[in-house]
Amino acid sequence: MNTIINTINNRISLRKYRDQDIADKDLDTIIHSAMRAPTAGNMMLYTILVIKDQHTKEQLVKSCDHQPFIAKAPVVLVFLADHQRWYDYYTYCQVKDYCRDNGIDYEEPCEADLLLAASDALIAAQNAVIAAESLNIGSCYIGDIMENYEFHRDLFHLPQWTFPVAMLTLGYYPEDMPRTPRERYAKDYIVFNETYKRLSDEALRDMFAKNDNKISPTNHYHANNFGQFMYGRKTGAEFSKEMRRSVKEALKNWK
Amino acid sequence: MNTIINTINNRISLRKYRDQDIADKDLDTIIHSAMRAPTAGNMMLYTILVIKDQHTKEQLVKSCDHQPFIAKAPVVLVFLADHQRWYDYYTYCQVKDYCRDNGIDYEEPCEADLLLAASDALIAAQNAVIAAESLNIGSCYIGDIMENYEFHRDLFHLPQWTFPVAMLTLGYYPEDMPRTPRERYAKDYIVFNETYKRLSDEALRDMFAKNDNKISPTNHYHANNFGQFMYGRKTGAEFSKEMRRSVKEALKNWK
Repeated sequence: MNTIINTINNRISLRKYRDQDIADKDLDTIIHSAMRAPTAGNMMLYTILVIKDQHTKEQLVKSCDHQPFIAKAPVVLVFLADHQRWYDYYTYCQVKDYCRDNGIDYEEPCEADLLLAASDALIAAQNAVIAAESLNIGSCYIGDIMENYEFHRDLFHLPQWTFPVAMLTLGYYPEDMPRTPRERYAKDYIVFNETYKRLSDEALRDMFAKNDNKISPTNHYHANNFGQFMYGRKTGAEFSKEMRRSVKEALKNWK
Repeated sequence: MNTIINTINNRISLRKYRDQDIADKDLDTIIHSAMRAPTAGNMMLYTILVIKDQHTKEQLVKSCDHQPFIAKAPVVLVFLADHQRWYDYYTYCQVKDYCRDNGIDYEEPCEADLLLAASDALIAAQNAVIAAESLNIGSCYIGDIMENYEFHRDLFHLPQWTFPVAMLTLGYYPEDMPRTPRERYAKDYIVFNETYKRLSDEALRDMFAKNDNKISPTNHYHANNFGQFMYGRKTGAEFSKEMRRSVKEALKNWK
C-alpha cells in the first residue's frame, strides 16, 4: 500500500488538537494544495476564509450546533461557494452589453450555479484535508456551517452570491493519539455496477444489522431500532431542521 | 515536499488515457479510498456507480456536452448524492410511527439534505481522485453530469432522492505524458483572513490581467475582453443553460 492510500486509510475526523499553532509554512501548503484541486473551467468558484480570531471561533461554536472543540482548533477554514467574484468581473467587463449586442441571454446565478460552485469548494476542501494529514495535521468537517445562514452572512460579510458550504477545523494530532478510523458500511450497499440498485428490506436489514444490535433499550431517543435512533439523533434533530430552514433562506439568493 | 503534496501539485485533469483496462485491484483501492472519506454522521449519503459498459459511456458522451474522450476512459464513476437508502431504511424501521409517538415532525428530504449528501459525494470523489493519482491513474471531473437530469435518471434508474452530482473519467496516464498543471489565480484573490473581501475593480483587473492579454481580437465569441469571453464560452453557454434547467427540474424532488 502506498503512502497516499495509507494516509487516506488512517485519517480520522480529529476533534482534539495539540496545543500548538499551525506553522505558517504548513498552513500555506494546505491552502496551496486546496487551490491545486480540480475546478470547473479553471474558474475557482470558491473562496477560502482563514479564521484564527478567537472571538470568531467562539461565535462558530454557538452557531454550529454548540461544539466547543471548534474554539480549540488553532485554525478554522470556511469554504464558500462563490460566484460573486466572477459576476463582479462580468460587471466590470460590461458583459450585459456584450450579451445584448450578441443576442445572448444574460442570466444571474441560480441553483445550478450554487451546486457547481459548491462542488468546486468541496473538492478543494478535501484536497486541504489530505494535504493536512500528510503534515500530521488533523481536521474535522463541520456541516453545521450550512445552518444559521443569516448569522454567518453577517459574521463573514458575505455578499449575495456566496454560500458557506463547508468548514474545517485544523490542528496537529496530539502525541500518541490512538487512530481508530470508524467502520464504514459495506461496499455492496454503496457501490453498484452500471445502474442504481434500490435496496430490498432484507438488504437494508443486513446493511444496518451491526448498528441495530448496539441500540440500548433505554436510549436517549426512545428508539426501538437503529433507523429510529438515527432519525431522532440526526435527520429529525433540531440542527437538521435549522439546516433545512437556513438553506431554503440562502437559496432565495440563487433564483 | 512530501509525496502527497507532490502528487497533489502534479495532478492534471486527464482527458487522454493509456489503452489499458484498469486493474481490478487498483479500482478496488480507488473505491475503498472514496469510502474512507469523511462523511456527515458516518451516514455515507452517497452512492458510487461504476460504469464500464461501452454503450452507456457513449450515451454519456452525448448527454455530457459531447465530449468523446468520455467513451475512451476504461472506467467512469458517477457519484450520487443519496438520501434514498436512508429513507428506505426509515420506512423499514417505521420511523413515521416513531415520530408520531414521540412528537417529532417527520420530514422528507429537501434542499439542505441534497446539499449535505452532495457534500458527502464530492468529498468521496476527491478522495478517489487522489487515490487514483497515487496509482498513476488520471481522472477528469465531468460537471455536465448535472445536465439532462431526466435522461440520466432513466439511464441509471435513479429513484427520487438521488442526484448525480459528480462524474469522474478514469484511466492510466499514457507513457511519457507531459504534465503541465494549469495555472491558478493568485491566492490574494481566493483566500481571505477572517472575513470576505469583495474585490475592487482594480483588483479584478489585476486578477484577470494575464488572461485578458491572451484574448484574440478575432475570438470565436466576439468578446472584447476575458470576462465577455468566459461568459460566452462558459457561464452563458448552452450547456450552462441546460444545467440550470436540469437542476431546477431535479430540485423538484427535494422540496
